[in-house]
Formats: sequence, C-alpha cells, structure tokens
Amino acid sequence: MALVYVTRRERFNAAHQMRNPNWSDEKNEEVFGKCSNKNWHGHNYELFVTVAGQPNPDTGYCVDLKKVSDIIKEFVTEELDHRNINLDVPFMKDKLASTENLTIEIWKILVPHIKKLGANLYEVKLFESENNFVAYRGE
Amino acid sequence: MALVYVTRRERFNAAHQMRNPNWSDEKNEEVFGKCSNKNWHGHNYELFVTVAGQPNPDTGYCVDLKKVSDIIKEFVTEELDHRNINLDVPFMKDKLASTENLTIEIWKILVPHIKKLGANLYEVKLFESENNFVAYRGE
Amino acid sequence: MALVYVTRRERFNAAHQMRNPNWSDEKNEEVFGKCSNKNWHGHNYELFVTVAGQPNPDTGYCVDLKKVSDIIKEFVTEELDHRNINLDVPFMKDKLASTENLTIEIWKILVPHIKKLGANLYEVKLFESENNFVAYRGE
Amino acid sequence: MALVYVTRRERFNAAHQMRNPNWSDEKNEEVFGKCSNKNWHGHNYELFVTVAGQPNPDTGYCVDLKKVSDIIKEFVTEELDHRNINLDVPFMKDKLASTENLTIEIWKILVPHIKKLGANLYEVKLFESENNFVAYRGE
Amino acid sequence: MALVYVTRRERFNAAHQMRNPNWSDEKNEEVFGKCSNKNWHGHNYELFVTVAGQPNPDTGYCVDLKKVSDIIKEFVTEELDHRNINLDVPFMKDKLASTENLTIEIWKILVPHIKKLGANLYEVKLFESENNFVAYRGE
Amino acid sequence: MALVYVTRRERFNAAHQMRNPNWSDEKNEEVFGKCSNKNWHGHNYELFVTVAGQPNPDTGYCVDLKKVSDIIKEFVTEELDHRNINLDVPFMKDKLASTENLTIEIWKILVPHIKKLGANLYEVKLFESENNFVAYRGE
Repeated sequence: MALVYVTRRERFNAAHQMRNPNWSDEKNEEVFGKCSNKNWHGHNYELFVTVAGQPNPDTGYCVDLKKVSDIIKEFVTEELDHRNINLDVPFMKDKLASTENLTIEIWKILVPHIKKLGANLYEVKLFESENNFVAYRGE
Repeated sequence: MALVYVTRRERFNAAHQMRNPNWSDEKNEEVFGKCSNKNWHGHNYELFVTVAGQPNPDTGYCVDLKKVSDIIKEFVTEELDHRNINLDVPFMKDKLASTENLTIEIWKILVPHIKKLGANLYEVKLFESENNFVAYRGE
Repeated sequence: MALVYVTRRERFNAAHQMRNPNWSDEKNEEVFGKCSNKNWHGHNYELFVTVAGQPNPDTGYCVDLKKVSDIIKEFVTEELDHRNINLDVPFMKDKLASTENLTIEIWKILVPHIKKLGANLYEVKLFESENNFVAYRGE
Repeated sequence: MALVYVTRRERFNAAHQMRNPNWSDEKNEEVFGKCSNKNWHGHNYELFVTVAGQPNPDTGYCVDLKKVSDIIKEFVTEELDHRNINLDVPFMKDKLASTENLTIEIWKILVPHIKKLGANLYEVKLFESENNFVAYRGE
Repeated sequence: MALVYVTRRERFNAAHQMRNPNWSDEKNEEVFGKCSNKNWHGHNYELFVTVAGQPNPDTGYCVDLKKVSDIIKEFVTEELDHRNINLDVPFMKDKLASTENLTIEIWKILVPHIKKLGANLYEVKLFESENNFVAYRGE
Repeated sequence: MALVYVTRRERFNAAHQMRNPNWSDEKNEEVFGKCSNKNWHGHNYELFVTVAGQPNPDTGYCVDLKKVSDIIKEFVTEELDHRNINLDVPFMKDKLASTENLTIEIWKILVPHIKKLGANLYEVKLFESENNFVAYRGE
C-alpha cells in the first residue's frame, strides 16, 4: 500500500497585534517592534493543510479534498477570516497571536476532523507573508 | 527617443475596516458585509508604482529605481506598514479605507516626488489580495 | 473625479481541443499540433476581469467586487468550470475553442452585467498557462 | 559527506475525468461531483521531482538536472502533455485518474532512471491546481 | 472585427554590470552602487512579449504562439541565455546594460518578425526581479 | 511542548560559472554546457531558511524572525548579493559554484548563529530558478 500526502490550500485575511499583557508598552515595543501597534495591523494568511493516507481503491482519493476544504472552512477560516485574531477568535483567547501559536491551534482543531475522514493530519503550514511562514507536524 | 515604463514593487501589511460613519451598523453590515467588522481585519498589500520616461544616455536608466523605492518607502509604505489605515494614516483621515481611495491617495503623494526625478508617474496599482486589485492613472 | 480600474480574479478548469471541422485530420494536426488531440487536453484557466469607474463617495468602492465575482461565477465560470469547452458550453458552440475566442465571448457576456453595476468593462484577460495569455478590451 | 535534495519542476496540460467504471452515473456524480463530467475537464499540472544524493566532487552537482529533466520529459510528461489521462496514457490504463494515482505511477516510472544517475528518488509532488497537490515518497 | 492582445512568456539567465565607460570607478560606484561590481552579477530575466491582432477565422488564433515562442528563442533568448549581456550579446554592444535598454533592443529585434506573422508587436515587458520591471511599446 | 518549523525567505542576485579548473575547456563545455560560459551568467537566487524550536511562552515566537533575517543578511546575502560567486565570495573560494555547494556552505555558516537564538537550523533551501532548487538539512 502507498502512503500519499495530500494538501489543500485555503486563505483568510485578519488583523492582529503582538502584545504580552504582562509587559509594559515599552517592553512590548522593544520586543515586538511595529508588530505591537495598539491599533492593529493585518495579513493575508495562506494556510496549507496536509493529510497523509492511502488512496481508496474505489475512488483513487486519499481523502475527498472537497471535504477537507469544507472542514477547514467550517472550523478554521470562518473563525478567522475578516476577524481580529486577538479579539474575535475563541480558540486564540488568552494566547499570543503569533503565527506559531495560530498554526498549533489550527492543528489541534483539525486533527479529529481529519481522523473522521479516515486519514491523518500530517502538517499545517501557515504563511503570514511571502517571506515568513510556520509549519507544525504535531511533534 | 524612447518612452519606457518602469515599475517598482513594494509591500506593506495593514489593518482596516470598511464603515461609513453616517450609516447605522445594520446599513454598514448590509453594504460591506464582513469587511465592516468593528474589530478590524487586515491584508498584505502589494504596491506597484510605474513611472514613464526616457532612458538617460549616461546611465541607461529612466529613473534610479533605488530612488523610486526610497520615495515610496519614505512617503507611502512607512506610513502604512503595520498600521491601521483608518486610525493611523494622516492621508487617509476622514476617507473610506477602500483600496480605490488608498490607490488614489498614494498617486497624489507620489506625483511630485517622481516629477523631481525627471519622470512622470504613470500608474499606481495596489493588490489587496491575489484576487482583488485596483489601478489608478491620474485620469 | 477619479477613474479607477478594479480587477477581480476567478479560475476554472476545463478540457478543450483545437480542431477546425472543415479540415482533415492531417491539416488539423499540421496547424494545431498536439493541441488537436481528438481525446482532448485541458487547462487551469485564470480569468482577470477589469472594470473602470469612479469610486462612490458613500462606499469608497468603484463597484462591489463581491457582486463582480458573483456575476463572473453565474454567467461565466459556472458554465466553464469542469466542462469541455467544445462540447458543453453554449456560448462557445460552433466556435474554435481558442483562448482568443473564449476571451472575446466572455467580454460580450460580461459587458451588460457590469453596466448594470454602474461601471464599464475595461478588459478581460485570460491565462491558459503561466506562459500564454490573451487580453481583450472591446476594440 | 553531505546529502542534498535537488528538485526539478516540469509541467504538462491534460484532460481527465473521475469515474469508477463499476458504479452507476448517479453514484459517480454523487461521489465525484463535477469531476465526473463525461465530457472531461482538464488541468495545468505542475510536477516537482526531488532526488537525494551527494554532490560529486568533480562537478559540484548531485545529479545533472538537465538529465533529470530529460528523463522526466521522455518517460513522463511526453506521455501526459496534451493527452487524456484516462484514454491516452498506457501507465494509467485501468486506474482511476486521481492525482494520487498519477503521482504514485510517476514515482514508479522514475525510480530506476534516477538510480542510473547515481542518486535516489526522494519525492514526487504533483500540483493539480494552486489549491490541491499530492506528494509521494515511496512509503 | 476584434483586436486581441496575446502574450508569450520566455525566460533567460544572464550576467551583467552597470558601468559607464566614460566615468571613473568612483563615479560608477556612486551612481550604480553594487550594480557596478566589476566582477559582474546576474539575474533570472522574465520576458513577456505581447502582440496585437485579430483572430484568424480558420484557426481562432491571433498568431500561433508556438511561432512567437520560436522567434523569441531564435532571435532573443538564445542570444542572452547563460550569457554576459555586456560582453557576449552583439545587439547590446556599446550600450549600457540596463533593463530599459535591453527592453528597447528586444523590441527592435522582434518588430519585423512579428509583422511577418501578420500581427503587430504591442509591448515588450522585462522583469529583472520580482520587484523591478520595464515595459516598452515603441513610443 | 510543541516543535514548530519557522521559515524566512531572503533573496540575492549573483553571477557565477560552472567550471572545474582541472578540466580542459572542452571537458567543461561537455559536462556543464552553457553553464560553463567563461564570461559568466547569473541568477536571482531565492533562499529559504527554516529553523526548528518551541514557541517561547512570553513571546509566542520560536525565534524573532527579524533576528533570523538580520543574521542571514549579515553573514550570507551581503556576501553574495550583486557579487560573483566564483570570484567575490570568501566562503566559496576553491569550491565549484553549484547550487548544491552554495546551499551546504550557507548551512554551515548559519548553524552557530541560529543556535545562539535558542533554536536549531532545520533546512536551507535555495532556488536557482523557478525550475531548479536544492535543499540541505545537515545530513
């Protein structure tokens, strides 16, 4: 049997800021620079979700990517798109709104849903910009 | 003599919202949908500035793109990057933060600076996302 | 008043072949090469629709790009996506399935719908691949 | 000694359909949706072939990518480009034309040819669209 | 009759330097900065050639893009690819190796060849990098 | 604790040639083809540096990507940008200027600097063109 890695891309646009609530403004400015702007900034995030599994002999598909797309939209991008990551997103509450933390939380949300499709989540990769991105594999 | 069109790309990441202050929340929601989120959302904006002119026989350059880049950074992207377009940007004060209005204001700012380089501003093109973008040519 | 050019990107995947029904197989092969394969080939088409108009003072928008997207989907990409351009698409019936002809027909379909939004269609640009694309401006 | 991973990109345009011949039209429509269109649809496929090996001290190359490109063209993309994956491609005969199956078959074809170059095939990655892609590593 | 604009992309990789032979090293360094490095630097150039014409009723094509590609390769990219623009390219002899001058010379070379195909050259656009590019339309 | 992979992209433009000094011109031409041009050619190189580590609870960052970018610029791209890889770059002296060797040397340079940031270098990936790239993971 063959193990394939199948990836679906989705996108969302969101505002955020990097601020540690236990720190002074000066300390936040010193550590996070312009990312700490109190009035927020934002990004077009690009999300790549990779699942691993074996092609089903009846369909040739490892998973139906339409279903993967629906799951990502319902549980992840609907929560994030045109939202403020610090203020509007329950699963990021009380967490620093870094791409690292966002990637890890998206992983946690998706794991059981991908399992139900008969495959395993392999990697979540999140681009904050063309220059910066984060991957998480549940390690 | 030959007229060439020379383009420089710059980028900035910003938060914004689409809200008409003369309208109720309901009307803003109806017209602008999720773009009216009071808690803001954001984008990675990509800006293409095109100037028109003739190559200088001594340099082969229409303009020094390093200087065009410096002008865009000093007068445009420094003002917008990691900022809130509605709250932080003097040249967008009291204007609706649409990509259209932003593109027009960037044009107005750049015209005299490009003139001083001995060329003419030909077009400002601003991508809000891979799917949506606006161009303005001073018409 | 300012004239802005606003562009929306949409995509569709379709099969087609290049064959002139008045020609022999040999002649079709000679002129169209492997594009004349009787068993079809296909592309991921990328469509850029540009409309021209003035920003509305109440919205800051030239047009609501959500409406432009809905129009393109309803009248163009729903007809083409996952279809055979030669066999399945009424507006391409009896026309050679070139990117040129496809671009011109998409223009004709969109003109009245964009008009109703209070703007003018400026350009339809269609990418058949990263190396080949066609633009039409109604000239 | 250092192990490097060297990748070559190639492209092909092809038609296909997703249909299980043991199923009714209704069942195919239900499972594969518009991908089951009897009249075919198509894609611009992007193929990334990664080989692993050590740089040769005389050339600095792990493999000559020109030779990798020639192998991919001769044995893979010549067979697929401007073809119908279901009808025209011997190595896909009696297989469901999914990107998963296509990726696995391309892997099988390339393994011995890469071996002859003194390197090992590490991964075949195939993009069906900007949103969907599959990787296979021979696991 | 409809006027369409058809574009073909080609690529080449070349070395160059920006140096005015009438100037001292200091002056070249002052004006061209690191682009004046005597030991050369280089780029992956991306060339977009746009021709304008009417679709032929027998083919649906404005021009056969295969022929446009062949012309660009024979007369332009074969001369430039893996070459030194200052030293190896007859049509750039005694010219400053700016993207502006290169774009203009490519235009001059292509005009008569596109004419013979029954179309008109509309634009040559040359990307030196993702951030810098030049267009020329014969004005 | 979660292990994340964080990537930063940087770019540089450089000239090089592929020539083994122990070989005749004929042998170099035979093995390296047009890459052996004595007058050099060049590329826009794209560099992706991936580091692995755990998000810091106080910042949400695995590493400050601004610092990663500064390190890459100071020790790698400043040495390579607008330079000749064969002639100008101390860490490539007496090495064949292949993308493989360049990738390995960049890895060696970066390892200790990333260590000081409290993370581990995971992968260096270097694109010579959109079609050819090399990755090294220190194996």
